[in-house]
Amino acid sequence: MSHNTFGHLFRVTTWGESHGPALGCVVDGCPPGIRFTRADIQNELDRRRPGQSRFVTQRREPDEVEILSGVLEEDGDTLVSTGTPISMMIRNVDQRSKDYGEISRQYRPGHADYAYDVKYGIRDFRGGGRSSARETAARVAAGALARKVVPGLVVRGALVSMGTKSVDRNNWDWDFIGDAENPFFTPDRASVQVFADYLDTIRKNGSSVGAVIEVVAEGVPAGLGAPIYAKLDQDIASGLMSINAVKGVEIGNGFESARITGEENADEMRMGNDGNPIFLSNHAGGILGGISTGQPVIARFAVKPTSSILTPRQSIDRDGNNVEVRTKGRHDPCVGIRAVPIGEAMVACAIADHYLRHRGQTGRG
Amino acid sequence: MSHNTFGHLFRVTTWGESHGPALGCVVDGCPPGIRFTRADIQNELDRRRPGQSRFVTQRREPDEVEILSGVLEEDGDTLVSTGTPISMMIRNVDQRSKDYGEISRQYRPGHADYAYDVKYGIRDFRGGGRSSARETAARVAAGALARKVVPGLVVRGALVSMGTKSVDRNNWDWDFIGDAENPFFTPDRASVQVFADYLDTIRKNGSSVGAVIEVVAEGVPAGLGAPIYAKLDQDIASGLMSINAVKGVEIGNGFESARITGEENADEMRMGNDGNPIFLSNHAGGILGGISTGQPVIARFAVKPTSSILTPRQSIDRDGNNVEVRTKGRHDPCVGIRAVPIGEAMVACAIADHYLRHRGQTGRG
Amino acid sequence: MSHNTFGHLFRVTTWGESHGPALGCVVDGCPPGIRFTRADIQNELDRRRPGQSRFVTQRREPDEVEILSGVLEEDGDTLVSTGTPISMMIRNVDQRSKDYGEISRQYRPGHADYAYDVKYGIRDFRGGGRSSARETAARVAAGALARKVVPGLVVRGALVSMGTKSVDRNNWDWDFIGDAENPFFTPDRASVQVFADYLDTIRKNGSSVGAVIEVVAEGVPAGLGAPIYAKLDQDIASGLMSINAVKGVEIGNGFESARITGEENADEMRMGNDGNPIFLSNHAGGILGGISTGQPVIARFAVKPTSSILTPRQSIDRDGNNVEVRTKGRHDPCVGIRAVPIGEAMVACAIADHYLRHRGQTGRG
Amino acid sequence: MSHNTFGHLFRVTTWGESHGPALGCVVDGCPPGIRFTRADIQNELDRRRPGQSRFVTQRREPDEVEILSGVLEEDGDTLVSTGTPISMMIRNVDQRSKDYGEISRQYRPGHADYAYDVKYGIRDFRGGGRSSARETAARVAAGALARKVVPGLVVRGALVSMGTKSVDRNNWDWDFIGDAENPFFTPDRASVQVFADYLDTIRKNGSSVGAVIEVVAEGVPAGLGAPIYAKLDQDIASGLMSINAVKGVEIGNGFESARITGEENADEMRMGNDGNPIFLSNHAGGILGGISTGQPVIARFAVKPTSSILTPRQSIDRDGNNVEVRTKGRHDPCVGIRAVPIGEAMVACAIADHYLRHRGQTGRG
Repeated sequence: MSHNTFGHLFRVTTWGESHGPALGCVVDGCPPGIRFTRADIQNELDRRRPGQSRFVTQRREPDEVEILSGVLEEDGDTLVSTGTPISMMIRNVDQRSKDYGEISRQYRPGHADYAYDVKYGIRDFRGGGRSSARETAARVAAGALARKVVPGLVVRGALVSMGTKSVDRNNWDWDFIGDAENPFFTPDRASVQVFADYLDTIRKNGSSVGAVIEVVAEGVPAGLGAPIYAKLDQDIASGLMSINAVKGVEIGNGFESARITGEENADEMRMGNDGNPIFLSNHAGGILGGISTGQPVIARFAVKPTSSILTPRQSIDRDGNNVEVRTKGRHDPCVGIRAVPIGEAMVACAIADHYLRHRGQTGRG
Repeated sequence: MSHNTFGHLFRVTTWGESHGPALGCVVDGCPPGIRFTRADIQNELDRRRPGQSRFVTQRREPDEVEILSGVLEEDGDTLVSTGTPISMMIRNVDQRSKDYGEISRQYRPGHADYAYDVKYGIRDFRGGGRSSARETAARVAAGALARKVVPGLVVRGALVSMGTKSVDRNNWDWDFIGDAENPFFTPDRASVQVFADYLDTIRKNGSSVGAVIEVVAEGVPAGLGAPIYAKLDQDIASGLMSINAVKGVEIGNGFESARITGEENADEMRMGNDGNPIFLSNHAGGILGGISTGQPVIARFAVKPTSSILTPRQSIDRDGNNVEVRTKGRHDPCVGIRAVPIGEAMVACAIADHYLRHRGQTGRG
Repeated sequence: MSHNTFGHLFRVTTWGESHGPALGCVVDGCPPGIRFTRADIQNELDRRRPGQSRFVTQRREPDEVEILSGVLEEDGDTLVSTGTPISMMIRNVDQRSKDYGEISRQYRPGHADYAYDVKYGIRDFRGGGRSSARETAARVAAGALARKVVPGLVVRGALVSMGTKSVDRNNWDWDFIGDAENPFFTPDRASVQVFADYLDTIRKNGSSVGAVIEVVAEGVPAGLGAPIYAKLDQDIASGLMSINAVKGVEIGNGFESARITGEENADEMRMGNDGNPIFLSNHAGGILGGISTGQPVIARFAVKPTSSILTPRQSIDRDGNNVEVRTKGRHDPCVGIRAVPIGEAMVACAIADHYLRHRGQTGRG
Repeated sequence: MSHNTFGHLFRVTTWGESHGPALGCVVDGCPPGIRFTRADIQNELDRRRPGQSRFVTQRREPDEVEILSGVLEEDGDTLVSTGTPISMMIRNVDQRSKDYGEISRQYRPGHADYAYDVKYGIRDFRGGGRSSARETAARVAAGALARKVVPGLVVRGALVSMGTKSVDRNNWDWDFIGDAENPFFTPDRASVQVFADYLDTIRKNGSSVGAVIEVVAEGVPAGLGAPIYAKLDQDIASGLMSINAVKGVEIGNGFESARITGEENADEMRMGNDGNPIFLSNHAGGILGGISTGQPVIARFAVKPTSSILTPRQSIDRDGNNVEVRTKGRHDPCVGIRAVPIGEAMVACAIADHYLRHRGQTGRG
């Protein structure tokens, strides 16, 4: 994979900076004849959009998608892909022309500032430039397409812990995640108040906190992936680790698998009445030897706390001076919240890519 | 990345099955003028080689490497790379011609058997075929070269936990890892007896157990990686997750970062007397925004317990029958042990690839 | 290379259709710190722009480029690349809303219509859709950047023959190519009247004619390319053959080399007074064994006659009927003319890509 | 495409030098279930093998292929691909240990020597090292597999001209090409004596001469390729131009298309009685807009005269001295002859790759 492209046959190339005129993506390799509406894309973007509750950044971006190529209009609102690149663009609207004076020369701890300057020698410091989480809007748009590529695919994500607080898995309710009263993408209604109180305190202190997100893909046909360097879990891990602030990825029972025995970890099988195998558990997260088994694919990822905090931290500047950095501005106190639809998008893209690759190599699917 | 290739400029393509005549790799993109000896490669292979203690598989493979192309001989034993593909081959020696009767049609729980058959419709069942951990010998050979590509790079790995037992980080001693009395790649001398007793019990029960490995790369220049889909941590995660039986990957403090606040997670900086920045901690694991900071790069990965166990497990066979599977044969009770040099190899390959890419895009390095 | 991407480290992905809202490209991998102006891009686009003489299509497209990402503004009009993707967009302006009735179902001989329908089952027939030569505007924009990447690189092209008429190489004058009285990119002032008379006849007959273009790249450092599947000439051939209507590519003396002896074909060398080698001829076109020699790189390509002609041709339609096709509308009687800046762009992109790759693998350049 | 890899889904990576222990290829992406025999590979290698007549190099290489991975044995001699990488190796046998003294420091005109040294700073000068035409044995082996991937595909090549002598197309007889009395791959029986006399003179003079080869692929399904940077003709051109000594490539009527009008160049169509379209000519060489039409795919390429000649040529050496180079040793007086099976192999590989890509993107094929 290249610097700014994800995927092999379903290829997503993103571009754009936080404070440039626009950002977007080019989806190359989308099969012809895929039907979707502008709303299919926009709805996913709206889930990731900032400014929707007091728990996320107050930057006001409508994130309206323009579809510039690769589709024909059919009846009503339906678009149909033609097999050519689908270019999607989102204009940046709310780039505040504030004075970046200090911040333009300071290296904010936890941000890419220092590493970036060493690498490129030049840096668009406005809002993080290319390293801004705004880039992820383009991923979400691409992911909305990827969902359409694999028939029957359903990819859903949930925030399962925030800082020291976790959901109760006994209360898991996928339907609650899109609820208007749920600003956290939590699957546990009872956790909303807990998370809200916790995050209000964090936010008022000018602090921030991390989170763990779980993504579950159902309807993944068995056989996607490959045994060595195109493992489905490898490419999912690659996609998730490429999201800003992600520091860990697990498949299935993940790190827990390192603590248990082979007997405990085995997913036993029986033949079902319909002639399809039934797995009696899913420790593997739907992937064995890098290849999907037909069970739900399960991935989790850890998002570190937002590095932009009000508490002063020691750092240095471009000129080699010791400085204290205190990051004002509009920031998510827990970037993990909005990472839920982004994680879904990356999992969907990885699966769509492997769906096409599998079809190419084997003629099946 | 392709099915069997890892990397973009430093490209490693591996081939071979457990019970075929040989396995190997082609390293394409190795810079010209890299000096090394056959022993540099062989020593790494010897670290991964089976049959060295009672805690690993008793299959006897010398794993002797043949270097078939891409080098010229200099004085003594020194080889020098010419910039052309370096092909390395390892003959399989100890493929027992046992009767695979049952196992050839049964789907072993935890193994790729079922998924593989669904994908390809044909499967070399002998010893796992392409999905065998023998493939990783080729990675280790490639990794030995990768280590030479980046001046000053040192990549070391350690087993930090096995099942429910963990090392004491206060006892960390890198030098102990190569010790003849250390069959576990543990950095903690005191842990040897604990691990030995624990694993003897596991082994005698015909069971198996998982492990966590930590890899630390020192001497990684700042600036490697890229902000979006060529993040250094993304490609390290991809490489580690591509190793057989790996179910989770962390960079720096990993999942712990999801539990703490921005203040706790920040790696503060000061200017050093030598004009280089000093980080006061390394929660980031040496990577910020996908780009190396010059601090040690730290990655951890979870290896699941060996799926081949003596305890019978329920499963099905190719013909749709319910069966009980009991995997005899020569197996590692903890495949995580030999995963240490493999993890090192993948981290080294990812870093070498980014070193060349960084040099390409920026002219620096 | 992917469906819509050209290059490995300097990667150009283009998107857009003839009659969609816009077209553009994303240039990924442009090194940081490259300085250029909007005019540098626009000037190249203006050279390719339609409607500039009676010898090219009368479609009126301003082809104004918007630069959407990857740059910072410096003093005056200077832009500087930041190392992130440079997204450039050109709005389509003059898409006539004509009735495509017949043409939407007919397969025009010489066009991609039939093959396209077989491939994708769906086709944007308006103006050729993705197969329109309008796509090449995006290549020209990318090529304008590529020219800046390699210090000292000068890439120039010339039309050397049109149908049965050829230039006199004794009259070669690079400076004349940009002359206002030269609508043909011919290097031979004396050929203008010949070409004009010839093409006027062709045009008035509703016919069309082919052309041969020569591209010369000076300032290419020795050492770019690779001996096997990344030959510099291979990638130049790939780039040129990817241009619409191109049916042949030559490097150096090309097909002539097949007619002569080794003695005649050899480019002899002498040491120059400045310590650099001097080649006594350049049959090789600046490339030996796939690697640049430091001599000018010379490539030629053949462009077939425009397939859209007024003379009726026999064909079939989507429904399997025999039909007669007569292509009205605005067409270039010789698409080879405007192919000159496009050929230059592809050569520049191939060279820039190899410049970065060479630097990556060898640390030189 | 990478330095030493050709293809995207059907990926061929080659390795090896002229005078190293061996050379070979890894074919990654070969679909599972492809049946072939060792003889299928060996027969193609035998067609390219040196030493078979007085018109080719007298180096004696059996070119026996070892198949090291990726297949299972079935009944009799049949091998079946498993979908994993197929590694094939050919040992070098006849590397004469001659004294390379002078030649190791001299830059032979027409060879890659100088460019190579500038690029890598180190060079395996023995027999051309990596730049030797021996590398093409690996391509031929891979091509033999590629032919099996596309059902019904037949790829045949013919030498159509040598120096100033050409075949008479009225005498075209594919069956004569494999005839024991035909050392030239000519399709014209009457040309054998002409070529033999001509080449004997060339050979006795210590000279060499170029050639033009035509490759025709029948049974290519319509729809392979893509409209922009994955044009089928582009990838065929790339593959052919990557062959040693090739300086030009044409598709269909190639450079001739630049000389004629749109009326003359159009391939008209009629509906056939079987419901399939009939093309009334094939100027396009079976490819329109980069996509196959179902007609035979026709490509031609020009091979320059062997650069190794006995006549002394002026050159320089590594130390900057003017020298005279006279290349003794065993050389093909016309390398174009043995280029016939190599050209076939590259065309077959390009088509197989696009067959899989088409299947991946569209689900058809």
